[in-house]
Amino acid sequence: MILKNCRYIVTQDNHRILENVDIRIEEGIIEEIGEKLDGVDKIRCQDYIVLPGLVNAHTHTGMWFLRGFYDDAELSLWLKKVFEIEKSIPRWVVKLSSEAAILEMIMCGTTAFIDMYHYPEETAFVSEKTGVRAMLGPVFMDIFADPENIVKRTEEFIKTYGKSRYITPVINIHSIYNCSEETLLRAKDLQAKYNYPLHIHVSETRKEVYYSKTRYGVFPVEYLDKLGLITAKTILVHLGWITNWELDIVARSNAKCVHCPVSNMKLATAGFVPLREMLDKGITVGLGTDGPASNNSLDMFREMKVMVLLQRNNYWSVDIKAWQALNMATLHGYILLGLKGGKIKKGYVADLILLDKKSFRLNPLRRENIVSNIVYSATGDDVVATIVDGRIIYSREKKAEFIEKISENSEKLNEWLRKHMESV
Amino acid sequence: MILKNCRYIVTQDNHRILENVDIRIEEGIIEEIGEKLDGVDKIRCQDYIVLPGLVNAHTHTGMWFLRGFYDDAELSLWLKKVFEIEKSIPRWVVKLSSEAAILEMIMCGTTAFIDMYHYPEETAFVSEKTGVRAMLGPVFMDIFADPENIVKRTEEFIKTYGKSRYITPVINIHSIYNCSEETLLRAKDLQAKYNYPLHIHVSETRKEVYYSKTRYGVFPVEYLDKLGLITAKTILVHLGWITNWELDIVARSNAKCVHCPVSNMKLATAGFVPLREMLDKGITVGLGTDGPASNNSLDMFREMKVMVLLQRNNYWSVDIKAWQALNMATLHGYILLGLKGGKIKKGYVADLILLDKKSFRLNPLRRENIVSNIVYSATGDDVVATIVDGRIIYSREKKAEFIEKISENSEKLNEWLRKHMESV
Repeated sequence: MILKNCRYIVTQDNHRILENVDIRIEEGIIEEIGEKLDGVDKIRCQDYIVLPGLVNAHTHTGMWFLRGFYDDAELSLWLKKVFEIEKSIPRWVVKLSSEAAILEMIMCGTTAFIDMYHYPEETAFVSEKTGVRAMLGPVFMDIFADPENIVKRTEEFIKTYGKSRYITPVINIHSIYNCSEETLLRAKDLQAKYNYPLHIHVSETRKEVYYSKTRYGVFPVEYLDKLGLITAKTILVHLGWITNWELDIVARSNAKCVHCPVSNMKLATAGFVPLREMLDKGITVGLGTDGPASNNSLDMFREMKVMVLLQRNNYWSVDIKAWQALNMATLHGYILLGLKGGKIKKGYVADLILLDKKSFRLNPLRRENIVSNIVYSATGDDVVATIVDGRIIYSREKKAEFIEKISENSEKLNEWLRKHMESV
Repeated sequence: MILKNCRYIVTQDNHRILENVDIRIEEGIIEEIGEKLDGVDKIRCQDYIVLPGLVNAHTHTGMWFLRGFYDDAELSLWLKKVFEIEKSIPRWVVKLSSEAAILEMIMCGTTAFIDMYHYPEETAFVSEKTGVRAMLGPVFMDIFADPENIVKRTEEFIKTYGKSRYITPVINIHSIYNCSEETLLRAKDLQAKYNYPLHIHVSETRKEVYYSKTRYGVFPVEYLDKLGLITAKTILVHLGWITNWELDIVARSNAKCVHCPVSNMKLATAGFVPLREMLDKGITVGLGTDGPASNNSLDMFREMKVMVLLQRNNYWSVDIKAWQALNMATLHGYILLGLKGGKIKKGYVADLILLDKKSFRLNPLRRENIVSNIVYSATGDDVVATIVDGRIIYSREKKAEFIEKISENSEKLNEWLRKHMESV
């Protein structure tokens, strides 16, 4: 596949922006960038801006059916209602929810996501079908399942999806407060055995910090470190209440982080993700929307903007810039996935999105304000096409079809929810 | 005009949401809401959610050409560059910028806006032509114009637009640091003579508070109050650094306020707009995007969401809810404009927007989560039609035409900007 005459290419490689050149893709890899490249299967890109695909580094796609569910209640009431509904959730609800969320994400330029929810097998099935990349796995969470059962299901999941081109297995742990020490150590052994990443919510709320401090005498990241769970393969999500000495543990271990600004703000978990210090220490920090029930958008463009806004509000400084948001949503995201991606450069995976240069949000458009307009003004609606592994998995001509499919799923999910809401 | 079988109507009247009823509009006013209403000019609305139009209560439409201009520079450098460019700005640049901004706003469901920029006559012309409501007037700002000149131009503006159906004149004052005491008093006299509102940036930055305190011995709102400029006709914008005793002055005087969360965050002005206290005291607080150069979006849906997010982050509490954001963007906005609007109720102005109930962002959709999905998930792209004064000024069939017009303006503005950027 050749992308011909790309009006602009945001390479994410030393801030280089190219104009009017071609991109040649072979077997899912960017093979060449240059002028007058030849090949079959050409796409005319003179009206498009080409950008690496966006990675939604933390979400719960299976919760799509709960968008707008007890939204403005206090966190504890919301959680209670959500847990009650989730107790009776059938597999098909997760499947239709995941499908709606995945279609929504790829329409908005997301090429890969990291997920944590019940029945990841359903989400994996839909991901492979649509051709989006996903990191998935069963979730250790004592109130919902016996840890031995999760070990077994994770091993089955690895057997089924370990060699998939699109799915990367992950050891999912809900949190230190929803897992006993034994469960955490069991998950650690499983991680060591297979060497897939380990993904966990940490230091999201003051309550969690209090729980850790009173029960274990240390802060959450310290606690996980004591148990040996902080390694280069660990993905820590949230960290709004991380201390500076825990930050050193993260940096020293080369553990990875994910920031979910909108969710933290909406749920009023407060705190302060010290992004400047994290990036200064060379820590990889991905960006995630969190689930559709706590954001409630899955649009990574909006997430990039709010990320910069929140950090500027907290630091009283414009230190955090648009290009850093874009780096986190692309480059850092691909590091989390363990893939050579997030740059438009020879040898990188061909996960790309095309934006419409005529979009009113992107104008007035000049070489020097492209990144700024992408982060501060664009939305997922400016995406013309989403390419994963060199394959077009969404193009604007299919928008109506995608919306129809989501709407169909929505009807069925709403019907189930209406019936079950009465009982919670 | 009859809106037939509106799937849902968010009335903004005691949180009432109506289903499957009609709205009859006569001469720009909502005359009746009920079942099986008859009349000519019917619009089938079974697939739409009807909502009062959104008021962008503070912007600078003429700055549209500066979207993405020195965006990530420090505030002082950005301001310096902007002021330098503005010195040589011709009228046609303001006209084409205002036009692009207005088209963008009405596509995103804005039915009225309050503006502050050079050459408001150009913006007024475009507003009347497109049929959107606007509050406009020349700006007192000593470095740009002699105050007597602004008095003269404001009086001319009032003569031309005082009886307009769409334009409301306003006495625009840039700020206490860009106007001498004499200028402020001159503006006050002008306000008293004509009784139109007075609109001013106040307590936006720490620097401004320091300026006021060291020069006048009091805080900015206190200073304006001492000069007699805080009245029920005053609209105070920003207030990130307002003190609690100044808040009492605002409440006692029944002065009005505008909150611009995204702009405050993006420019890292920090501070804290004490919205909970303001609303508790019964103060009218509109919501504004600020100009396209400091946001950089003009989408009021996005602004509503970030408003709730910022307040929750600052208060560590979910006290501020989605319905309050919607109230501020509708009801409070219309109070600022001095119009009976912002509710879908007999006798209110027929400024309405229609949203597509099939939008993926609004789903799953139920009566009880409509407001939540509108505020936390929807964007201007979900707007199917924008109605002002009972006239459809935008409908989705015209989207391509609108985008083409904006793109045309963008080309011309970019050409001018490129030439003049070299000299600043």
